[in-house]
Amino acid sequence: MVINMLNIGVLGYGTVGSGVVEVLNTNQESINKKAGNEINIKYVLDLRDFPGDPIQEKIVHDYDVILNDPDVQIIVEVMGGVEPAYTFVKKALQAGKSVCTSNKELVAKHGAELLEIAKSKHINFLFEASVGGGIPIIRPLNQSLTADEIEEITGILNGTTNYILTKMSKEGLAFDEVLKDAQDKGYAERNPEADVEGYDACRKIAILSSLAFGMQVDYEDIYTEGITKITDVDMKYAKALNASIKLFGTSKKVNDEVFAMVSPMMISEEHPLAGVNDVFNGIFVSGNVLGDVMFYGRGAGKLPTASAVVADVVDAAKHLGTNIMTIWSNKKLELSDIKKAKQKFFVRLSGDKNMNIAKVNELFGAVTDVEEVIAGEYAFITGEIAEGEFAQKQSELTNMLNRIRVGF
Amino acid sequence: MVINMLNIGVLGYGTVGSGVVEVLNTNQESINKKAGNEINIKYVLDLRDFPGDPIQEKIVHDYDVILNDPDVQIIVEVMGGVEPAYTFVKKALQAGKSVCTSNKELVAKHGAELLEIAKSKHINFLFEASVGGGIPIIRPLNQSLTADEIEEITGILNGTTNYILTKMSKEGLAFDEVLKDAQDKGYAERNPEADVEGYDACRKIAILSSLAFGMQVDYEDIYTEGITKITDVDMKYAKALNASIKLFGTSKKVNDEVFAMVSPMMISEEHPLAGVNDVFNGIFVSGNVLGDVMFYGRGAGKLPTASAVVADVVDAAKHLGTNIMTIWSNKKLELSDIKKAKQKFFVRLSGDKNMNIAKVNELFGAVTDVEEVIAGEYAFITGEIAEGEFAQKQSELTNMLNRIRVGF
Repeated sequence: MVINMLNIGVLGYGTVGSGVVEVLNTNQESINKKAGNEINIKYVLDLRDFPGDPIQEKIVHDYDVILNDPDVQIIVEVMGGVEPAYTFVKKALQAGKSVCTSNKELVAKHGAELLEIAKSKHINFLFEASVGGGIPIIRPLNQSLTADEIEEITGILNGTTNYILTKMSKEGLAFDEVLKDAQDKGYAERNPEADVEGYDACRKIAILSSLAFGMQVDYEDIYTEGITKITDVDMKYAKALNASIKLFGTSKKVNDEVFAMVSPMMISEEHPLAGVNDVFNGIFVSGNVLGDVMFYGRGAGKLPTASAVVADVVDAAKHLGTNIMTIWSNKKLELSDIKKAKQKFFVRLSGDKNMNIAKVNELFGAVTDVEEVIAGEYAFITGEIAEGEFAQKQSELTNMLNRIRVGF
Repeated sequence: MVINMLNIGVLGYGTVGSGVVEVLNTNQESINKKAGNEINIKYVLDLRDFPGDPIQEKIVHDYDVILNDPDVQIIVEVMGGVEPAYTFVKKALQAGKSVCTSNKELVAKHGAELLEIAKSKHINFLFEASVGGGIPIIRPLNQSLTADEIEEITGILNGTTNYILTKMSKEGLAFDEVLKDAQDKGYAERNPEADVEGYDACRKIAILSSLAFGMQVDYEDIYTEGITKITDVDMKYAKALNASIKLFGTSKKVNDEVFAMVSPMMISEEHPLAGVNDVFNGIFVSGNVLGDVMFYGRGAGKLPTASAVVADVVDAAKHLGTNIMTIWSNKKLELSDIKKAKQKFFVRLSGDKNMNIAKVNELFGAVTDVEEVIAGEYAFITGEIAEGEFAQKQSELTNMLNRIRVGF
C-alpha cells in the first residue's frame, strides 16, 4: 500500500480539538494504516496561543491560511456553534476540501445544504460525532440500515440530563440538588439550559430524523420539553411502576405522518433504553424488516467524541474524490401536529382518590390507578389519548401536580 | 440519478433466502433509491422446485447458469455450511462478481482468503449478516471504530442459548425443561449441539476477533464451553448476587496477548449486556479512546438477517468496481494460552462452610462467601486466578458441584 501524506487543518483547540490531536497521536500507526495515508495535522486554528504545548507551532489565527493552502485536503471543524463554523465549513467545501465535524448546531441548521455542496464537489461532509459522541449511529443509519424503512428513532441523546435523572432515581434526590452536584462535577454547565430544557437533544433528534426520513427536519418544528419539572416524588411513582423516567428524543412514522418530540418519558424497565444510565447515551431504531436495534455508549466526552471525528477523517481520507454520504434532501419534512399524536399520560393530582375519581372518570373515562406513594395524592395512567385532547382536559384539572408521558 | 438494472443471483431459497426476496420486494423503491440501481433477482439456486410460488420462474438447479451469466454482478449466498458454499463463492469472486453472505461457517473458515480475492478483483465480499443477524456490527467495526485500537469484544452471540438462560433465570426452570420448550417453539433445533455447546458463538467471535485485530483467528483455537452444565440452582445464586449468567463469546487484548473464549459468565446486573434477554443478541466493544459501546438487536430470524444481507447488496451495488472492505490478513493470529488468562470463579461445593473452609483457604487463600441459597452447600467467589492454576486446584476439590467464571 502506497502511503501518501494527507494534510488536515483542525478548527478549534478546545476539548474536542485537543482530543482529536491526542487520538491521532495515540493511535497514529493503526489510523494511518486504515486511512491508507499518513495523516498530518498541518494547522490548528484558534484565537489563543498555547505556549509550551507542542501544538503551538501549528497554531494559526487566520482561517484563510488554512483555506488557501492547497495541500490541506480535510478540515476538522470542532469549534461548535453556528457561526463562524458555518461560514468556515461552507468555504472549505466550496474550495474542494472535505469536512468532518462534531457540531450538532451546524449540522441541524445547515446539514442538507452542506451535504449538497459536498456532493456537487465529489468530496465529503461527515458528522458522526454530532450525535451520540462516540456511538456509531450516523454511519449505521446511512450504510447499514439501508434495506429498511425506518419507523422509529428514539434516543437518550443527552448525557447531562441522563446523569441527573439516574441520580435522582437512585438516590431519591431533588432535581436542583442533583443539578448542582452535576455542575460541581463538570457534567453540567453553569448555564444548563441547553441540556435541561432539552434543546441539545432536540438538535440531535432533528439530525437523526433528517437522515432516517431523507428530508430536512427543522429543529424549530420539534415540540421540546425538558426535565426541570421532574421531581423526586415522580421517581418514587416510577419505581412503584417498575419503570424509569428518561429524557427521550423521538421521531415516529405513523401511517404517512412523522411525529417528533423531545420530552421526559416513563418507560418500563424492560425497554432496551431503560438500562442506559448515568452519562451514557442510547439510540433505539426500529425498521420495518429489521425490527429493533439499539446503540449504546458515551454520548460525550473528549476522547469518545474525538474518536468519532477521527473515524470520519479516516473515511474522508479513504474517499478523496468520491462522495459517500446519502440522501438527505433540502426538501423540508413537514412534521405532523403533535396535538394529534396519541400517548398515555401518568397524572398526579392533589387530594385522594375519592376526592378526584368522579372528575377523572368524567374527563378520561376508565384509568389505571397507580399504587399510593404519597398520602393525599391520587395518581393514575390514562388510556391512549391525543396530545391536544389531553392538554385541553388537563386545563380542567386545577389540582394537577404533574403529568409525564408513558411509553408502556 | 441514472437507474441501471443490476442483476443478482440468490443461492438458497431457505429461511434467509426467502427473506431476502421478501425484503427486496417489500422495500423495493427505497432500496433501489439507496443503491442507485434497480436491483433485480434474476436467479434463485435451489435443489427444490417451488410450484405456485412466483419465485419458481427464477429457480435454477445448476449453479453454472448463474456463474456464467455476465449480467449477474452480485451473488447472495444464503445456503449455510462450508461446502458447496465455499466453492460457489470462490468461483463467483474469481469471475468478478461481488458476494454477500450470511454464512458464519464460511466466513470463519475462509474469510481471509475470500476477502483477498475480492480485493484483488476490485469487488466486494460482504458478510454483515454472519454475526448478530440484523445488528450492524461488521460495518461499524470496519468503518466506524477506525480511530481506535480495539481492546475487547464481548458478545451474547447466540439467541437460542440466551433464550434458554433467560427463561431459566426468570422462571426457575431446569436446563432440560427449557431446552425442550425452546425446541417446541422452534427457537432451538432438534439437534441443539451447535447452539448449546457454544460452537455457533465460537465461529462468530472468531469472525469478530479477526476483524478487530486484523489477522486470521481460527475458531478451532478458541476455548469453547457451552451452557449444558448451568443449573437452576446456579441461577438462584446469580440472583442473590444481583447478577446474570450469560453465554459470552469474548476476545481481549492484554498487553500484546490476545485471549479468546466462549463460556458462561456471571455478570453484574449493571453490565450493559445484562439487559440483553430472550433471543436478543448484544455485542460490547471497548476501544482505547472510544471507551465502551454496545450494539443490540435480533441476532437471528428470517427478516432481520435478510435485512442485513440486503444492506450488503445495497453497499455492493454502490461500490461496483471498488473494494471497500478492510484489513483482515491471511496471517494467523496466535491466541495466547487460555491457561494464562486471569479470571475470578464462582464455585459451589457440597457440604457447608465449616466442612469446606479449611481446604478452600488452603487452595485459594481468602475468598468471598456467597449468601446461602441451598442448605448443605458452600458457595464462594475466588480472587483473580489464572485459568490453568484454577483447573489444577479444582481437581483437588472432589466435592465440587459447579464453577462459573465471574465478570465482576
